[in-house]
Amino acid sequence: MTTANQQFASDNYSGICPEAWDAMARANQGHDRAYGDDQWTARAADHFRQLFETDCEVFFAFNGTAANSLALSALCQSYHSVICGDIAHIETDECGAPEFFSNGSKLLVARTEQGKLTPAAIREIALKRKDIHYPKPQVVSITQATEIGTVYRPDELRAISDTCKELGLHLHMDGARFANACAHLSLSPAELSWKAGVDVLCFGGTKNGMAVGEAILFFNRALAEDFEYRCKQAGQLASKMRFLSAPWVGLLENGAWMKYAEHANQCARLLAELVSDVPDVELMFPVEANGVFVSIPPLALEALRSRGWMFYTFIGVGGARFMCSWDTSEERVRQLAKDIRAVVLQNQ
Amino acid sequence: MTTANQQFASDNYSGICPEAWDAMARANQGHDRAYGDDQWTARAADHFRQLFETDCEVFFAFNGTAANSLALSALCQSYHSVICGDIAHIETDECGAPEFFSNGSKLLVARTEQGKLTPAAIREIALKRKDIHYPKPQVVSITQATEIGTVYRPDELRAISDTCKELGLHLHMDGARFANACAHLSLSPAELSWKAGVDVLCFGGTKNGMAVGEAILFFNRALAEDFEYRCKQAGQLASKMRFLSAPWVGLLENGAWMKYAEHANQCARLLAELVSDVPDVELMFPVEANGVFVSIPPLALEALRSRGWMFYTFIGVGGARFMCSWDTSEERVRQLAKDIRAVVLQNQ
Amino acid sequence: MTTANQQFASDNYSGICPEAWDAMARANQGHDRAYGDDQWTARAADHFRQLFETDCEVFFAFNGTAANSLALSALCQSYHSVICGDIAHIETDECGAPEFFSNGSKLLVARTEQGKLTPAAIREIALKRKDIHYPKPQVVSITQATEIGTVYRPDELRAISDTCKELGLHLHMDGARFANACAHLSLSPAELSWKAGVDVLCFGGTKNGMAVGEAILFFNRALAEDFEYRCKQAGQLASKMRFLSAPWVGLLENGAWMKYAEHANQCARLLAELVSDVPDVELMFPVEANGVFVSIPPLALEALRSRGWMFYTFIGVGGARFMCSWDTSEERVRQLAKDIRAVVLQNQ
Amino acid sequence: MTTANQQFASDNYSGICPEAWDAMARANQGHDRAYGDDQWTARAADHFRQLFETDCEVFFAFNGTAANSLALSALCQSYHSVICGDIAHIETDECGAPEFFSNGSKLLVARTEQGKLTPAAIREIALKRKDIHYPKPQVVSITQATEIGTVYRPDELRAISDTCKELGLHLHMDGARFANACAHLSLSPAELSWKAGVDVLCFGGTKNGMAVGEAILFFNRALAEDFEYRCKQAGQLASKMRFLSAPWVGLLENGAWMKYAEHANQCARLLAELVSDVPDVELMFPVEANGVFVSIPPLALEALRSRGWMFYTFIGVGGARFMCSWDTSEERVRQLAKDIRAVVLQNQ
Repeated sequence: MTTANQQFASDNYSGICPEAWDAMARANQGHDRAYGDDQWTARAADHFRQLFETDCEVFFAFNGTAANSLALSALCQSYHSVICGDIAHIETDECGAPEFFSNGSKLLVARTEQGKLTPAAIREIALKRKDIHYPKPQVVSITQATEIGTVYRPDELRAISDTCKELGLHLHMDGARFANACAHLSLSPAELSWKAGVDVLCFGGTKNGMAVGEAILFFNRALAEDFEYRCKQAGQLASKMRFLSAPWVGLLENGAWMKYAEHANQCARLLAELVSDVPDVELMFPVEANGVFVSIPPLALEALRSRGWMFYTFIGVGGARFMCSWDTSEERVRQLAKDIRAVVLQNQ
Repeated sequence: MTTANQQFASDNYSGICPEAWDAMARANQGHDRAYGDDQWTARAADHFRQLFETDCEVFFAFNGTAANSLALSALCQSYHSVICGDIAHIETDECGAPEFFSNGSKLLVARTEQGKLTPAAIREIALKRKDIHYPKPQVVSITQATEIGTVYRPDELRAISDTCKELGLHLHMDGARFANACAHLSLSPAELSWKAGVDVLCFGGTKNGMAVGEAILFFNRALAEDFEYRCKQAGQLASKMRFLSAPWVGLLENGAWMKYAEHANQCARLLAELVSDVPDVELMFPVEANGVFVSIPPLALEALRSRGWMFYTFIGVGGARFMCSWDTSEERVRQLAKDIRAVVLQNQ
Repeated sequence: MTTANQQFASDNYSGICPEAWDAMARANQGHDRAYGDDQWTARAADHFRQLFETDCEVFFAFNGTAANSLALSALCQSYHSVICGDIAHIETDECGAPEFFSNGSKLLVARTEQGKLTPAAIREIALKRKDIHYPKPQVVSITQATEIGTVYRPDELRAISDTCKELGLHLHMDGARFANACAHLSLSPAELSWKAGVDVLCFGGTKNGMAVGEAILFFNRALAEDFEYRCKQAGQLASKMRFLSAPWVGLLENGAWMKYAEHANQCARLLAELVSDVPDVELMFPVEANGVFVSIPPLALEALRSRGWMFYTFIGVGGARFMCSWDTSEERVRQLAKDIRAVVLQNQ
Repeated sequence: MTTANQQFASDNYSGICPEAWDAMARANQGHDRAYGDDQWTARAADHFRQLFETDCEVFFAFNGTAANSLALSALCQSYHSVICGDIAHIETDECGAPEFFSNGSKLLVARTEQGKLTPAAIREIALKRKDIHYPKPQVVSITQATEIGTVYRPDELRAISDTCKELGLHLHMDGARFANACAHLSLSPAELSWKAGVDVLCFGGTKNGMAVGEAILFFNRALAEDFEYRCKQAGQLASKMRFLSAPWVGLLENGAWMKYAEHANQCARLLAELVSDVPDVELMFPVEANGVFVSIPPLALEALRSRGWMFYTFIGVGGARFMCSWDTSEERVRQLAKDIRAVVLQNQ
């Protein structure tokens, strides 16, 4: 069923890491209170507060679609708008989920540079119009690491959050691969979030070794008012919540979250290095997280698929995307690089 | 953390059963396609089709709130209404989720007899008005087994579905405890669903031994059009779907779902028998599924709580609710019954 | 097309009063700014501020469905609930509009006494449950005058608003017939609204002689934040706004609003008096505004319809409803009363 | 209050034409049934059926925001998408109304040529992706005449509707200035709508001489199922509907709608001709309806504003927009042209 050639298709294709699994097993002892009133959920929330060195509000949702959409719906009324990048996942790959959860908040798309929003791009959209026929900008949403594997530096984040403050906008961070960003910069979660002015972070667990589950962290606690009701109403309150929260304890208590992010990033860098000198193959973006975007001649791409490798080309801006994950093996990375080299040379 | 005294608080307080756990472990092998294109999801869907002896459409959602609300939103437009019982979970305990998912479909509450809707009660609501100011009735929603532990017989279901057909209404079944209903009547899932005229069934897994997850079965396949988009947009499409579907394979492949439902029902019957002769204690409803609703004098209730027993009183119609689950132990049932007897006698 | 026998069917059946018409004619001079930036809209808003003796925020919507639903959506998030009476128009006759505009806010129905909510009834619903599965009560909505033609006194309003304050709830007033309430009590608009603790009032113009249009007055100005965007997005911002606002100037500048409300009330009282001694005919509620609800034997009702009189029986609580309006003629009132007497005597 | 210099700011700045006014006056006789059961509404609907030579379903809404958004919400589920042009009014000037009414249907923006969508542009968006993460294309929406005053020819419409049929998409037409398009081409409404494959047309009355009101015509009658409930729930059902429908009778019964559209178009053409030889002034688009878009040097624009002329520059694609309406006077057109010439020459 499972083939090694799927290993680079998506970090969503990976399974559950041992630490998350073990925590689930430990949580699976007898009965416990439902809907988050259990000890595992309290512990997971505390781990987040320690990790982020601040007393943030912590919530758990089943997946990233819901985590980001719920967070945005807490920041927006229906007539507000969200400024995001042209390749933002919430814009391109959520089938209208943010609009659905918020009952109509419009996403206003700004240009990005290497996948990143800039103060200038935000300003351009936010200040474009002030009339009532234009949905009032209320939130800026950025993805860290970005959809194309680049990473915002603290000064870039600070410049953005300063712009937000000046314009009266909240700052939301889609952190589906937040761990990979921290790993890349060797910076603490706090430095890349609230210390840099982020109001709300959706911290991804699924791509980092969990079965399901994302955490929503409100650093600006006022924005979290009644958020538990929002989760409940939107079908995101797990009755047996401990199985959603315990894996977080597993990931966070001994640093597994960082270990795996570093591993995935390292595999991506290795792949990038190994193909860097292949003729006609070009890295499309700096490899800063766990994704490698490569432009490869069409015939070679086809040949690579014929060899059984699976990958997507529609994400971000075209080109082949190879994703590394917590359990990617170096051996498979080398095999993939070898095959890329081979198909390109054959198809020249 | 976990105490045995929580065992009767809710079937949601129980953990994951071995069969579901093992299937998750088996699914946790290497990489697999995301978003339901994996083999486990296909197998789970096939198991449902075999179990229900029909080629139904099968979808998976994270919890019952979402499963029911999504199903209803597929059957309704926003200006439609859903006829349900006065104690229906969708009316009393979902924080407005059906209205949220459907963007405003109104629930019209009909009176129930022992927790069950009747053709007469449905007719009363559906035919009350025909004007445009009254949201147009479109769906009848029933809960099987009901929120107070009673079970619809096939002839009762058929009478309801005939009424629905006559009135042009769809029939939705909230089956959070559907297994318990099948176990009680020793009838096949088919007999209690599509053969009795049910269009859509939300089959509960969580209360039956899973960590998360409900299945949505469309017997009327036309109603399932584009339902996968609906799931995606509403944040109910798991990326690592196999971990939502594999436990179903575990539960269904060797009949564990029925074994556990029978066990829970049996525990409930035992509890009911053991307290039946306690003075001042009265069974409020026939015990047909895994719940026992008992009226107990207030002082005795308090004393029972002092002994550490946990239970709810707001669900359904007041009284103390004791829920049995897949892993309830007979010994604890006997202990609870003994304590009920003791506190009542002491407080007479 | 138009027959006098329709005169008591509904106050919505009446036309445009001369004062509103003339103001529209005056407004129909040349070009003017759109979307409410015109002078007529500013003048109408000022008239409201003068009439209510306070610097409230004023908005205009096309009809009562929208005015009330928009106001409620400004006071609620989707997971909140609105406590209203069992005969509240927003509950019984808006086809789910409040739920639609708010994306799911649930209406919680409280019992009424002679159509009026009481602190006790509000408290019962608001304090019933505090758990997350119950949509959080956020607003109380009352109708003044009520759907059955009764009127809240200032002390009743104050008792309700005190309860709201204590429970942290906003107070919304559906004032489709607010003018009739003021007329009945000979009290100022301020006394029956903000001075009695009302946060938001939807002041009805349509039933008072306008073609279309309701005003939304926020006495609690903080609640009006960005409300103009809400109106726009929901399709309630008129481009040629002056034709929605000028009629208000006509109604308000010389007191026509009060003159007509008094007239309609007077006609209703006359009708009530004239039938008060008819055997088998009973006034169902005190006649305090412009509606008369009468229980009449079924055969007599039928005979009344045969004579061409049109009236509704489904509104409120059954019985025949006769509505008087700004242009009801005393002669027709006497004719109706005569016919009621005749059909009842004939059908005894 | 009103100044002649506002005459070209917007066709929304104009008042009510005599024919609409007279019909309102005629409708304002005594009482009549509410909510559209009156004779004026039936007559207006019949006039539309005659005018369009087909038995279409006809509904009335208060404004264009609502008419278009409601129509789209009838064609779409929340997870569907609407393909429209980059300058489409529904995308740029409705504050997220379509997303609000449909609870999340996403607008997918396609490039336009002179304001018009093309089969190729539609195909590009519709066929871009087929995966579940991309909201499923369901409708194409075009504006006739376009936001920049160009007009689709029948063969262009037919090519678009053929593309729609091939791709399984509905075709919606925003006809805020549909009359101007008919006038420009001297073609019948039928030829520019259903005969060319349009499923639903929102026919604008406001810009054509009415106070409020747009008509929604479903040529594909199946799409109109329960649409009256949709209107009601969304706050678009007028109680005194006759005042919304009678003006249509006035406009349609003797051809006033066409007379005024021709007049406005003629004024626009005259303006275009008069400025065509002014140096540094350039017509940005062919003048085919009642709008003239002119690029004028910034200093000249400023000078024009100093002379009291009012106009918008943010609509469409920049440049100054001058709109003519049913009551624009030729004299004012000549004055405006003269002033444009003067300010340009002065600022050279």
